[in-house]
Amino acid sequence: MKKHNFFAGPSIMPDFTIQNTAEAIKDFGGMGLSIMEISHRSKEFVAVMDEARQGFKDLLNIPAGYEVVFLGGGASLQFAMVPFNIMKKKAAYLNTGSWASKAIKEAKFFGEVDVVGSSQDQNFNYIPEYTIPEDADYFHITTNNTIYGTEIREDIKSPVPLVADMSSDIFSRPMDVSRYGIIYGGAQKNLAPSGVTFVIIKEELLGKVDRHIPTMLDYRTHIKKESMFNTPPVVPVFAAVQTLRWLKQNGGVEAMEKINIEKANLLYEEIERNKLFKPTVTKAKDRSLMNVCFVMNETYSELEKPFLEFATSRGMMGIKGHRDVGGFRASLYNAMPRESVEALMDCMKEFEQNH
Amino acid sequence: MKKHNFFAGPSIMPDFTIQNTAEAIKDFGGMGLSIMEISHRSKEFVAVMDEARQGFKDLLNIPAGYEVVFLGGGASLQFAMVPFNIMKKKAAYLNTGSWASKAIKEAKFFGEVDVVGSSQDQNFNYIPEYTIPEDADYFHITTNNTIYGTEIREDIKSPVPLVADMSSDIFSRPMDVSRYGIIYGGAQKNLAPSGVTFVIIKEELLGKVDRHIPTMLDYRTHIKKESMFNTPPVVPVFAAVQTLRWLKQNGGVEAMEKINIEKANLLYEEIERNKLFKPTVTKAKDRSLMNVCFVMNETYSELEKPFLEFATSRGMMGIKGHRDVGGFRASLYNAMPRESVEALMDCMKEFEQNH
Repeated sequence: MKKHNFFAGPSIMPDFTIQNTAEAIKDFGGMGLSIMEISHRSKEFVAVMDEARQGFKDLLNIPAGYEVVFLGGGASLQFAMVPFNIMKKKAAYLNTGSWASKAIKEAKFFGEVDVVGSSQDQNFNYIPEYTIPEDADYFHITTNNTIYGTEIREDIKSPVPLVADMSSDIFSRPMDVSRYGIIYGGAQKNLAPSGVTFVIIKEELLGKVDRHIPTMLDYRTHIKKESMFNTPPVVPVFAAVQTLRWLKQNGGVEAMEKINIEKANLLYEEIERNKLFKPTVTKAKDRSLMNVCFVMNETYSELEKPFLEFATSRGMMGIKGHRDVGGFRASLYNAMPRESVEALMDCMKEFEQNH
Repeated sequence: MKKHNFFAGPSIMPDFTIQNTAEAIKDFGGMGLSIMEISHRSKEFVAVMDEARQGFKDLLNIPAGYEVVFLGGGASLQFAMVPFNIMKKKAAYLNTGSWASKAIKEAKFFGEVDVVGSSQDQNFNYIPEYTIPEDADYFHITTNNTIYGTEIREDIKSPVPLVADMSSDIFSRPMDVSRYGIIYGGAQKNLAPSGVTFVIIKEELLGKVDRHIPTMLDYRTHIKKESMFNTPPVVPVFAAVQTLRWLKQNGGVEAMEKINIEKANLLYEEIERNKLFKPTVTKAKDRSLMNVCFVMNETYSELEKPFLEFATSRGMMGIKGHRDVGGFRASLYNAMPRESVEALMDCMKEFEQNH
């Protein structure tokens, strides 16, 4: 039976990425060796790293003055690295969920944190209003909230450097990078297997804090050494390059946005039409294109487990909602084909007819 | 032509690890999905992480009171994490090369660093004498120095907690873990592709410093969450588990030590016998079993490049010495078969006969 991969992350990868990575694990570029067992300083791997950096610049149209680095440790390490590198006295944070809360917690050890908006009062099911203080060193947002299914899909015009955790919506739409100071994210949603973190940095923001920064946590270390200060995670970087190629071959972020809007709209419409279900995010403008969260309508709450079992029996994988929200979550990252969304909708319709 | 992989790291992996990882990238355990695209919290991947932890405990006979965690960021991040977590006032370091020097540099930002011995005067070609100060919070060593070809192969009896960077000789011999406080290393020599770092920690050492430790840099975070605080690097962890299985199937670290001694002795003997070459490490007891470094004898120095070309044409990969030492370096990690060492020796003998 065909499996439809709705996991929230690590999540669906393009078949192109999967097949090319499996091949490179066996024989990398005809070298007769696995990509796992060659020097990261070989010209063959240096070319991979160069392509990763250039792929980001091309696909996101990154302007001059920015650099792209690839690190280990995950986005969670960036929660500390951002303030380590650029917080002088005070930073503004928007609290839109679990990941934003973790970023806030880490930042508090480096200076004053002004939480300018929070949607915690309604279990983070909307994007809160906020005013950005002009005396903040930066303003931090989490653009897509995988657990709660909300997303900030505009490039905010901020009077202070805008820092965005875009772990789960990078490459899902065209964006104006010039509006950001730092963009970072774990790779394991729209890019590559877990184990590599990308950071896009406006270089002029660096070198302005007084504190000592450990070498590995200093962005300048990795910019200067082109992400080769120490051994980079070669397999995840190689896989990322395959996905960047796949993105280019499939029309880039402009084409992705079009398909992502189509896929998400189809599913949100079915959720609203179907008598059994309702979306958890009420304001349409706050709804994520990447993670569609929905629950049973009150009258049908006893059908939650039966629907999960029914959908799973039809090959729907990973649609159980996060424990903080309950219900269901269908993650529709770039690599998710429209056919899988339709397969899920068919399940929902058939289950409705049977009840 | 058969390739003989002498790269210093990332370096040769067992074919068992390569084939099983390539297969899991295509289809993980019959799930119909790639290991790159499934949740790290799925029962299938949790089993992998559990096996990784248990494999370390079994193979190294790790006593109670120790935990094993798997992190991103590389051994270079440990240079800062060790003092972050356990340096109160002062630590002792042994300077045996480039990596030790980097560890010392990071530690200096956390307290007083007493460099109790250094072999820098002779380009790190021997293991220096030292006395461990009893008032140090810990004593840090780099057991194997990949660039210079030296190795500390005994488990030092230290009056203070012994901290060892064992990136390149972990699993190469049986060891008495109870003599260590912390053992850490990047995986990319004897274990797995780059992107995962192992840390074996005596738990009672933790929680005794006053400084704030960022969550991701606090060993307790990862012990408590069993290396699942954030998304771990799934592919490198999976590959590590394959190597751990391969080690068990091949007699464990006892068998590895036996073969490693055989392989290294064969090559060192040929270097000493052959009129063209000489070893860079003069004292036999300081010579690494993992990285055999050698140069041309003075009278034949003009043959360095020709020998490199000759050996490369015979399928010897990665034997060029590090730029700090010059000459040649043959890395003989666990996965290196005796046949490859013999193939290199054949090259050396034939080249000698031709000159």
